[in-house]
Amino acid sequence: MLSNSIDIAGYERSRVQLIDEDRALRVDHPRTVKFTAAEIEADRIVRNIRSLETQSIWGADHEDIPHVFPGMEFLTAKDIIVKTKLFQILTRMPKGALLHIHQGASVDASVMLRLALQQPAIHISCPNVINASTILSTSPRFKAFPEDRYFDAYGLTELSYIPNTWVSVQKARENFDSALGGPEGFDRWVVGAMTINPTEAYGSHNTVKKIWQKFGDAFMVLDPLIRFLPIWAEHLRAFLLACIDDGISYTEIRTNTFAKCTSFDPAYTYEIAADGQSSVSRRELFLIFDKVVNDIRSEMKVQGRGDEFIGAKIIYVLQRFVDNKALDAELEQCLSMKLEFPHLIVGFDLVGDEEAHKPLIDYLEPLLRFKQRQQELGVDIPFFFHAGETLGDGSKADMNLYDAILLGTKRIGHGFSLVKHPKLMEICREKRIALEVCPISNEVLRLTSSMPMHPLPIFMNNGIPVVLCSDDPGIFGNMGLSFDFFQVLVSSEVTGLLTLGQMARDSIECSTLVGEEKQRAMLAWERRWAMFIKEIVQMEAEYLN
Amino acid sequence: MLSNSIDIAGYERSRVQLIDEDRALRVDHPRTVKFTAAEIEADRIVRNIRSLETQSIWGADHEDIPHVFPGMEFLTAKDIIVKTKLFQILTRMPKGALLHIHQGASVDASVMLRLALQQPAIHISCPNVINASTILSTSPRFKAFPEDRYFDAYGLTELSYIPNTWVSVQKARENFDSALGGPEGFDRWVVGAMTINPTEAYGSHNTVKKIWQKFGDAFMVLDPLIRFLPIWAEHLRAFLLACIDDGISYTEIRTNTFAKCTSFDPAYTYEIAADGQSSVSRRELFLIFDKVVNDIRSEMKVQGRGDEFIGAKIIYVLQRFVDNKALDAELEQCLSMKLEFPHLIVGFDLVGDEEAHKPLIDYLEPLLRFKQRQQELGVDIPFFFHAGETLGDGSKADMNLYDAILLGTKRIGHGFSLVKHPKLMEICREKRIALEVCPISNEVLRLTSSMPMHPLPIFMNNGIPVVLCSDDPGIFGNMGLSFDFFQVLVSSEVTGLLTLGQMARDSIECSTLVGEEKQRAMLAWERRWAMFIKEIVQMEAEYLN
Repeated sequence: MLSNSIDIAGYERSRVQLIDEDRALRVDHPRTVKFTAAEIEADRIVRNIRSLETQSIWGADHEDIPHVFPGMEFLTAKDIIVKTKLFQILTRMPKGALLHIHQGASVDASVMLRLALQQPAIHISCPNVINASTILSTSPRFKAFPEDRYFDAYGLTELSYIPNTWVSVQKARENFDSALGGPEGFDRWVVGAMTINPTEAYGSHNTVKKIWQKFGDAFMVLDPLIRFLPIWAEHLRAFLLACIDDGISYTEIRTNTFAKCTSFDPAYTYEIAADGQSSVSRRELFLIFDKVVNDIRSEMKVQGRGDEFIGAKIIYVLQRFVDNKALDAELEQCLSMKLEFPHLIVGFDLVGDEEAHKPLIDYLEPLLRFKQRQQELGVDIPFFFHAGETLGDGSKADMNLYDAILLGTKRIGHGFSLVKHPKLMEICREKRIALEVCPISNEVLRLTSSMPMHPLPIFMNNGIPVVLCSDDPGIFGNMGLSFDFFQVLVSSEVTGLLTLGQMARDSIECSTLVGEEKQRAMLAWERRWAMFIKEIVQMEAEYLN
Repeated sequence: MLSNSIDIAGYERSRVQLIDEDRALRVDHPRTVKFTAAEIEADRIVRNIRSLETQSIWGADHEDIPHVFPGMEFLTAKDIIVKTKLFQILTRMPKGALLHIHQGASVDASVMLRLALQQPAIHISCPNVINASTILSTSPRFKAFPEDRYFDAYGLTELSYIPNTWVSVQKARENFDSALGGPEGFDRWVVGAMTINPTEAYGSHNTVKKIWQKFGDAFMVLDPLIRFLPIWAEHLRAFLLACIDDGISYTEIRTNTFAKCTSFDPAYTYEIAADGQSSVSRRELFLIFDKVVNDIRSEMKVQGRGDEFIGAKIIYVLQRFVDNKALDAELEQCLSMKLEFPHLIVGFDLVGDEEAHKPLIDYLEPLLRFKQRQQELGVDIPFFFHAGETLGDGSKADMNLYDAILLGTKRIGHGFSLVKHPKLMEICREKRIALEVCPISNEVLRLTSSMPMHPLPIFMNNGIPVVLCSDDPGIFGNMGLSFDFFQVLVSSEVTGLLTLGQMARDSIECSTLVGEEKQRAMLAWERRWAMFIKEIVQMEAEYLN
């Protein structure tokens, strides 16, 4: 009766149009990208699997895991995630480039421990005897020694252990008290000290400030291992192979060269050579980096898997607590390394807890001088600043966003608080300044309590280029990119497989690759993507038959 | 040396300009509002107190309260908050209008219990005997009875208590087992059932879905009390007096008239009159509403406090699970009430968990018809839809935002997920559609795990009108608006007292008040604001002398 005079159809048209306008800036909007029929079909299949698993897996009760939901706390959810079909599919997806990764936490902790155990030079020490009451609160320290100074003291769990003395890591493991689990107990303890566990992230250290303390501790455990050159080379290789295994074909690694100028820990010096005592020049370090990358590239080509590995480059990083004078000196070193390794050093960043350390504005003069020096020398080392990795509103870290952008940052590391800044969002959209968004890192480090609470959809709907990154997978356990892609995919009903595909494309687009190398990377990705799409459609066809 | 050729001053100028542009849309931006010298001084004083307390209170260790920080979980922080000087100042601030409040949870739970105990008609029942092992998991039910059916059974904690039978609430209290704390134990139990405690919000029910179950339970306990007319009148009075006490001079109350059409609980009928059995017409209800408001207005005038209370109006609400046919009938009732109480009924809304119940689009036809009928009758009942109270991206509740806006909502209840929608943000800014932001509600209901994680600064920096609201203070314990204002103030270094003042101004501006009444409300607020500012400046002067 009355309904005749109400314009339902007109309303529906307005609604479709409004939703379309609202999503017009998205990377997956049909106006900007034409998907193939196979892509659309694969997307439908994946949405369907997600929807089924939302009920069957995230709607079910799980023993010992309360509060289960899609996009929930990663460290608790990981055991569930790996069992999903959705995750299995994502592990096979070509991810493009990994553009935000700290080399110091790039490798699985158990692999790091294995690498340490392979080196007789590596020793371990503790500030106290390890027993049932101290084990959870004590972190080990590692250190390489020359052969004539190897120590074979009995072990860390002996009453006679003298605090802070060094024991061969192999011996310490062999002799670890059987009441604490023996060698396996040793492994659990060391891996625990190198990683963040759910109890820490969601219980004992459940604020941004507290979890950064544990995060820093984990780095302190890992650092001396990585500084030992034989491990450095091996862990880089292990990292790149793990990337390839997860479908990542290219990476720009934030590499800390441990400047002497840090107030970090005076006992920490430059990298240590295989002899356990000589220091290693940066030149040697970069030569090894180059060799490892070239070796893998050759191996992959020989195996006919050239598309799976384009390469790896370095974003040169320093810590945010150097003073300005030291920074000037370090930046000169960076310039000279760039002149020697122009293909390898592709950017510069300052790292460390933005709220705890100096804001970018404090480094204004050295950073402007650095840019000037680049012009003089005819080189280009763009900035890739961490900025806005914070919940603060107008805090130091939040204000870093203004400076990162004014200083011409090419991408922004995290940019979590960028959502608060309409003008900066506009600049990032217009200048195509990509955000290196690290979903799991942000959640574990308590910027967001679960993925649905993450600002990612805001960036996406505002047309800001986004690349998904893993940040410190060695510490968080999100090796590769499949876990981060998974958390993003299950936390939205708008985002689908094709959205992830567009983000993977953008990761190559927003990398520092140029010219022929970039084209090769993009074509290789496109070939693999087409195969991946075909695989999903076939999988479904087989399942239906 | 080199620094001469670097344009530091130029950089600084660009920086100031960029920050200014980024904040240009804020309600407190100097381009849109000229603050007095006293206001600027008061703002400085308050920022200073905040900064000192960030260290002295939020930087200190508190026994039994781990993880203390500004803007932390409200239910845990409340005991600390009330001791701060900042909070004491905010309790004295004139807040303007409270525009998002559910009448069913508008009054402190212990007051609700006191009101129940004053009524011999009120009885209580439980689904089981209350003892040490059942008390935490059992919620009581209340019901009014006529005098000839009063029940004096011994008590709820007796072994002989027959589940689901009714006991006089006074007797049940008197006879409550002393092992469970006796009458005080009864009070704790009932108040606990009417409220959400920290263990529930941050432990046992720590997801949006689970906490909504507890939230719904609390409403089920409160509802029958409020439906009993003598309590209805008293609790409305108690609510308005509490508002006045906290500096709120006007409110638009979402009033549920408990339509028969609900599938909520068939045993629940319309409101019950003082005789404990007759049902009450909506007309009677609104007459009482009018009387309570007019009485308080007169009392305040007599006390020379006319500026402190402008009045209270009704946003007529129904639950989101009515069917379309029932909704049509209810909307006709709403229209007839509007014709009779044109000054009282100022809007319409549909309430309830947006993810669990029907989306707005399901009600499209009745809602469009309702608008058409308003035109025919020459009345205006604008929509004040709840929309986007969710973490979902593209979920039912998130999609409600499109419909709320297309249907012409005057304000948006919550709009939490609006941040994800650039086009809708633009529309809200341009059409001045205010968001009724409920910081503590959002946090307790687990949309945000603490205030710093809340999207409020995004709305503010994008120039979207925001009014801060308490939502369900009876259940959350955030009586008045001081707690919500506090959480907002301590979670930002950009927002200050003057920002809160502008939001208070906007609460009157974005209310349904018009003409002379609005002008009177605004002038009254301005007078009180000027006094408040003066008070802060004097307080500081006295402190310094």
